Amino acid sequence: MNYGTLQDFAVKKRKQLHQTPETGFTEFITTYEIYQEIKDTDFQLHIGRDILVSDKRMGIPGEEKISQSRDRALAYGVPETFLRFVDDGHTGIVAVLDTQKPGSHTALRFDIDGLPINESEADSHIPESEGFRSLHSGEMHACGHDGHAAIGISVVKFINDHQEKLSGKFTIIFQPAEEGGRGARSVVEKGWLDDTDYFISGHLGIGDHPAGTISATSKDFLASTKFDVEFKGKSAHAGVEPNEGKNAILAASTAVLNLNAIPRHRDGSTRINTGVLKAGSGRNVIPDTAHMMMETRGATSELNDYMYHQAERIMSASAAMYDLQADIKFMGHAPAACCSEEFIDIVKAACKDNSDIDEIHDVLPLGASEDATYMLNRVIEKGGKATYMVFASPLQFGHHHPEFDIAEHSIRTFVSSACDIIKYLNGSG
Amino acid sequence: MNYGTLQDFAVKKRKQLHQTPETGFTEFITTYEIYQEIKDTDFQLHIGRDILVSDKRMGIPGEEKISQSRDRALAYGVPETFLRFVDDGHTGIVAVLDTQKPGSHTALRFDIDGLPINESEADSHIPESEGFRSLHSGEMHACGHDGHAAIGISVVKFINDHQEKLSGKFTIIFQPAEEGGRGARSVVEKGWLDDTDYFISGHLGIGDHPAGTISATSKDFLASTKFDVEFKGKSAHAGVEPNEGKNAILAASTAVLNLNAIPRHRDGSTRINTGVLKAGSGRNVIPDTAHMMMETRGATSELNDYMYHQAERIMSASAAMYDLQADIKFMGHAPAACCSEEFIDIVKAACKDNSDIDEIHDVLPLGASEDATYMLNRVIEKGGKATYMVFASPLQFGHHHPEFDIAEHSIRTFVSSACDIIKYLNGSG
Amino acid sequence: MNYGTLQDFAVKKRKQLHQTPETGFTEFITTYEIYQEIKDTDFQLHIGRDILVSDKRMGIPGEEKISQSRDRALAYGVPETFLRFVDDGHTGIVAVLDTQKPGSHTALRFDIDGLPINESEADSHIPESEGFRSLHSGEMHACGHDGHAAIGISVVKFINDHQEKLSGKFTIIFQPAEEGGRGARSVVEKGWLDDTDYFISGHLGIGDHPAGTISATSKDFLASTKFDVEFKGKSAHAGVEPNEGKNAILAASTAVLNLNAIPRHRDGSTRINTGVLKAGSGRNVIPDTAHMMMETRGATSELNDYMYHQAERIMSASAAMYDLQADIKFMGHAPAACCSEEFIDIVKAACKDNSDIDEIHDVLPLGASEDATYMLNRVIEKGGKATYMVFASPLQFGHHHPEFDIAEHSIRTFVSSACDIIKYLNGSG
Amino acid sequence: MNYGTLQDFAVKKRKQLHQTPETGFTEFITTYEIYQEIKDTDFQLHIGRDILVSDKRMGIPGEEKISQSRDRALAYGVPETFLRFVDDGHTGIVAVLDTQKPGSHTALRFDIDGLPINESEADSHIPESEGFRSLHSGEMHACGHDGHAAIGISVVKFINDHQEKLSGKFTIIFQPAEEGGRGARSVVEKGWLDDTDYFISGHLGIGDHPAGTISATSKDFLASTKFDVEFKGKSAHAGVEPNEGKNAILAASTAVLNLNAIPRHRDGSTRINTGVLKAGSGRNVIPDTAHMMMETRGATSELNDYMYHQAERIMSASAAMYDLQADIKFMGHAPAACCSEEFIDIVKAACKDNSDIDEIHDVLPLGASEDATYMLNRVIEKGGKATYMVFASPLQFGHHHPEFDIAEHSIRTFVSSACDIIKYLNGSG
Repeated sequence: MNYGTLQDFAVKKRKQLHQTPETGFTEFITTYEIYQEIKDTDFQLHIGRDILVSDKRMGIPGEEKISQSRDRALAYGVPETFLRFVDDGHTGIVAVLDTQKPGSHTALRFDIDGLPINESEADSHIPESEGFRSLHSGEMHACGHDGHAAIGISVVKFINDHQEKLSGKFTIIFQPAEEGGRGARSVVEKGWLDDTDYFISGHLGIGDHPAGTISATSKDFLASTKFDVEFKGKSAHAGVEPNEGKNAILAASTAVLNLNAIPRHRDGSTRINTGVLKAGSGRNVIPDTAHMMMETRGATSELNDYMYHQAERIMSASAAMYDLQADIKFMGHAPAACCSEEFIDIVKAACKDNSDIDEIHDVLPLGASEDATYMLNRVIEKGGKATYMVFASPLQFGHHHPEFDIAEHSIRTFVSSACDIIKYLNGSG
Repeated sequence: MNYGTLQDFAVKKRKQLHQTPETGFTEFITTYEIYQEIKDTDFQLHIGRDILVSDKRMGIPGEEKISQSRDRALAYGVPETFLRFVDDGHTGIVAVLDTQKPGSHTALRFDIDGLPINESEADSHIPESEGFRSLHSGEMHACGHDGHAAIGISVVKFINDHQEKLSGKFTIIFQPAEEGGRGARSVVEKGWLDDTDYFISGHLGIGDHPAGTISATSKDFLASTKFDVEFKGKSAHAGVEPNEGKNAILAASTAVLNLNAIPRHRDGSTRINTGVLKAGSGRNVIPDTAHMMMETRGATSELNDYMYHQAERIMSASAAMYDLQADIKFMGHAPAACCSEEFIDIVKAACKDNSDIDEIHDVLPLGASEDATYMLNRVIEKGGKATYMVFASPLQFGHHHPEFDIAEHSIRTFVSSACDIIKYLNGSG
Repeated sequence: MNYGTLQDFAVKKRKQLHQTPETGFTEFITTYEIYQEIKDTDFQLHIGRDILVSDKRMGIPGEEKISQSRDRALAYGVPETFLRFVDDGHTGIVAVLDTQKPGSHTALRFDIDGLPINESEADSHIPESEGFRSLHSGEMHACGHDGHAAIGISVVKFINDHQEKLSGKFTIIFQPAEEGGRGARSVVEKGWLDDTDYFISGHLGIGDHPAGTISATSKDFLASTKFDVEFKGKSAHAGVEPNEGKNAILAASTAVLNLNAIPRHRDGSTRINTGVLKAGSGRNVIPDTAHMMMETRGATSELNDYMYHQAERIMSASAAMYDLQADIKFMGHAPAACCSEEFIDIVKAACKDNSDIDEIHDVLPLGASEDATYMLNRVIEKGGKATYMVFASPLQFGHHHPEFDIAEHSIRTFVSSACDIIKYLNGSG
Repeated sequence: MNYGTLQDFAVKKRKQLHQTPETGFTEFITTYEIYQEIKDTDFQLHIGRDILVSDKRMGIPGEEKISQSRDRALAYGVPETFLRFVDDGHTGIVAVLDTQKPGSHTALRFDIDGLPINESEADSHIPESEGFRSLHSGEMHACGHDGHAAIGISVVKFINDHQEKLSGKFTIIFQPAEEGGRGARSVVEKGWLDDTDYFISGHLGIGDHPAGTISATSKDFLASTKFDVEFKGKSAHAGVEPNEGKNAILAASTAVLNLNAIPRHRDGSTRINTGVLKAGSGRNVIPDTAHMMMETRGATSELNDYMYHQAERIMSASAAMYDLQADIKFMGHAPAACCSEEFIDIVKAACKDNSDIDEIHDVLPLGASEDATYMLNRVIEKGGKATYMVFASPLQFGHHHPEFDIAEHSIRTFVSSACDIIKYLNGSG
């Protein structure tokens, strides 16, 4: 089949979405743009509190951030009435179409959030030179979720346009807040995937291959927990009465060294990182607070749990060391997961005539964390098959880099592959 | 003598100066206000590059900060022509009067800078309730230098008005950038104090006594060095390739622990503090930079040197530990010093009839750092006598606190004491 | 074939050798006992400096230890004339038999050293209750090398007795100092294995299986480097002049924390351990020396090198931190290695009628270090095939435990398997 | 008065006692030697459990050490009957003489224990060259307590011989276990000093002056607490399952760094030292135990308490950091104290004609710890006067050094000064 028009649309829409990146749970403009594109299809649309369990969200931004993003959306043209549905960080859309013909329930998930990164203004950076750089200072689509959202819209349009020739049921999830592993759990807990036969998710631009190479499944997801720690001590004049202080920088430093010294584990890879540390108020004041942004990872959920429990004990002991308090705030989580091997044959059969694809790999070792794993796990637990596919793109700068950019051919390939697989799984003659 | 009018002036002028605090080397408004008050006296005035050795200043703020403060001064009404004299951080004034009659050369020093503290808006805070709170967000006179500047102006006026009855020579130094020990050295190096017979400096609000109590001299100045350290490593994805990073937070943490573990010294008190630590860019990134704001102190200059040299070695070893670079930037310094004991008798004799004073202590143990020590040391080296006096004020909140405030009686006492001492030292019948 | 008599001999000889454990490079009694058992065969015997390159040995014990062990051997009955060949830590024997008939050159290696562990006197410990506990206080065969030596002797006897029916050439290596990875390199460097077709080594009692289970090959050898570090500082009275000291315990503590914090590596498992730390001389003295016994490991030699190079830098930086010296002494090494897969079929075919064996596994994941890897690597480099086999034994207490003991059936199985494989590889009708 | 004979005796007796040094609470030979010298005087003698409160002793040695020292004493010739009085570490003697004439109660204290140091065999070391080096390997009088004991005997003899001309009452305390601050408290608690008018203690060889210089009083005693810490974790194979260990060396290292980082105190000098650290059992074993020997000090008892309480918290947190246990064992203590200023005049008046003395200083700053402070404090609390005198001696090697030796003239001076003061305080015509 020729997907040219749909692919052209996806490429163009991605450029537009690239200009309005919004970080997790503030995707007001993005959700509205998706809504606008698909509101005239036969899909049933669900938004806001209807698509997720509110208190299963993690790492919700502060009121000030939400309020600023809401104001920006208003200024952009998102109607006040629409914003009421998605306010307080209830972003994202789920679109459902039941063909009423017997067949599989196939679900696809597309993540839509941006990152707190200031996009490059380098001439060599295509979004800059072609004029679709981020309009939001300090926020950027540096992980390809602009592409994911555009592809998701294309998939909705494809199913809508071809529903005569399709059977079964479709659920398309536009998920907020994938970065930091904050959104997927709340969507899963709402039950959208409990009776799914096939679940497809994926990512643009991973793996060291030319665009046109895809991977049918992935492995080596690292389970990960994201958390913040706040040490609270007591300030004092560093010259006059140092003994009166309870030094948060000493506690944090002890924590950092001992966290990195958590023993390696017999059973496989583990990770820990203190990525950000901010502490103290003035040169001559014993510092009374220290704020740390941290994460643990493990090759399995058990290994990640091992790291997290060790970290908890070390945090608490580091605070006790200097008679401080340590408050740990849970910020996000992604479990480990495995793809269903059946998808290797499915993808190969479905895409055998796809001319955008040069090569199909069975499985790509990811070595990273992704909260789609919540969804993979739920689907497989309930008896369905699930995959996380990868669409290669040569990258000059890695994900989360201010000059990150993806080849448009990888977007086109994702669109045609998704449509091919839908036809294969839900075709009805 | 009745100093009532002069004291009223000082109290009022301090309230005005309180509203326009400027941190070290950006005292554009403050310098101009002092200039305006004393430009019509018989004193010779020196400003800008004439009063200090430019490259002996320490901890000069960045261009952006200087430029913003300059713009603020222009908006305030300081003429462009005046700003040209004090630009690029060459603030402060020195006023000199030679009576041409034989007599002592007496110098007084008043420091004029504010602090990077946001002043309290509490109703109980008098500058707020009486309407003279800082107009400069994030800057505050939280150390009484507004009072010092107002008293200095009063002293100039007093000498000018009574020059008939005075002999010898007077040098009044309005010094920039005392906070962090950044300004005094550059003034001293210009030679203003090389032929001084008597040198008087002092501070409002130190010591746990009612206003009206003064101390003729001080002891236990802590020598201090202020410095910043920047660790520069290499970032890497914390999940995918942790071994590729050079972790600046690990280096900084190692440094902090080992700095605090520098051995106590046989010869007396020492101090070290890492007051501020900011490091890293994102939770899942091996942090490549860490910025630390630090200080050492010692009961003698030798003890402070001991601490600083140990700290230097520890910084360098902490960087080497993780194959990073450590850049140490010198930010300020104050040596230790001793007052001339002769001033005990001088102050007692000069102020014996001063009705503002309830009690005169011989010596107050300071236990803090103050860059007037550069001046004390120079004067005494050259054969003069020098003191650092203290004018008590009951304080609800300590120096450098957002609610710091001083009793007006302590300002009045400083004015009358200074004038009494001037008459005693330089009176001519 | 019935190996009953040979197996009975091995079991009995192992009990005898169990009583005279000697740590690496002091196996004077052990070498002599092996010599006595095989001196009347047709094998050519090589000992002392003839079997190893003297300066390629690692971790040679101090003179005092060697001299005490030598005296003990004299008292035991080892003749002075024999001791002259093996003195100064040149222990071990190599036995060679060339049948002069065309055929493979097959080599086997047996390690013979004991451990510095005090053997248990618990009634439940069989060597105690059956009366063959170690007679050497503080030394013990807690790793089964007594069994290995006894099996090696049995193999020599077997080949000698059946040489009519065998072809090719045999080299049997009784290697000193396997513990700590200290002996194998020096034997390899002498060239014994440079023209070997088949190389067989192995271990008793590894893997969680009943005796009778064997593994044809092993994988997951961890490369390992063993080293000692000596921090040398300066002592001082801790009360009177703490600043005069250069504190070796502070340096060692900094080293320990930072060594354990070496980043995990993308490419696989790594390990580091400070197993022993001894420092200081008295409670009230700033400690001037600290001695650390350490090791690194890695799933590949590259990963072990990564750990060791990081460790070197951290040691040096920890010394610099307190102005001390760090002397690193190389104590032992084992590279990573792979077995030749061909041995899976060889072992299965050779042992297919062996009634001592219940089950043959293809490959056992070892997850430990073993200096036989030097030999595996050399043989394979030169074009031969090599394996490291494992003979299971249920263990109540692990290797290196004071109550370690092995099932005699595992010894019998090792004997019969080795003979079966020799017949298979070198049989001549 | 000519004290020549008595001084000759003291010098000779000290040489004898120098040969049989015994560490705290094992002074069996020493106590017996003192007993032998004074048993025929008119003094009432008290030994063993009669002179101290058994459970107020601190840091009692283990049974094995006590038993070995007891056997050594038996071999030396101390009768079994005598040993029964002083067994289980109840060493020391108190000698009391009441003249029955009205007068002051004057007490003197002499400490008698040696140190666990191996005495030098250098030719330049006088005890070696003159043939009175320690006969006890690993024990030495390296702090002059051999001299103190000999002087104490001389004082008893002097009082006994001159009792006709003396009035009042005398208590001479030969105290065990001064080193480590272990013995004084138990003697004080027995009440010997509760009705003392004058108390005299002192030390040989402190201060940088020639022999013949004495100090009437001392100041700057550092309060000190001695304690041992045992970390108990869990061992595991460092290669195979590092995660199963609970690493005592990591806990100890964390403790060391953080202990040295306890904040300096506004109120004065503090000290902390980990003098000895022994941990771990083998290079490839996660270490399960670590033993630390430690001490805190402070210029006042409050400052020492501050350090000790901080140390306790840090120990406990360091154990919690790695899920270990920390057992803290109290090993000794000395409070801070002040001498009675009245003794300055007493000593000067009493010794004004003493020809052994060249110079009398009022007060010597000690900067060290000494458990005589328990006694000074008790006497002064009860209304008496107390001093700690110092008798200078030029030293080539400091106290606690293997080549420590004192000038004999300092012993002679101590004898004559003590007798002069006794005559002055208790003379009766």
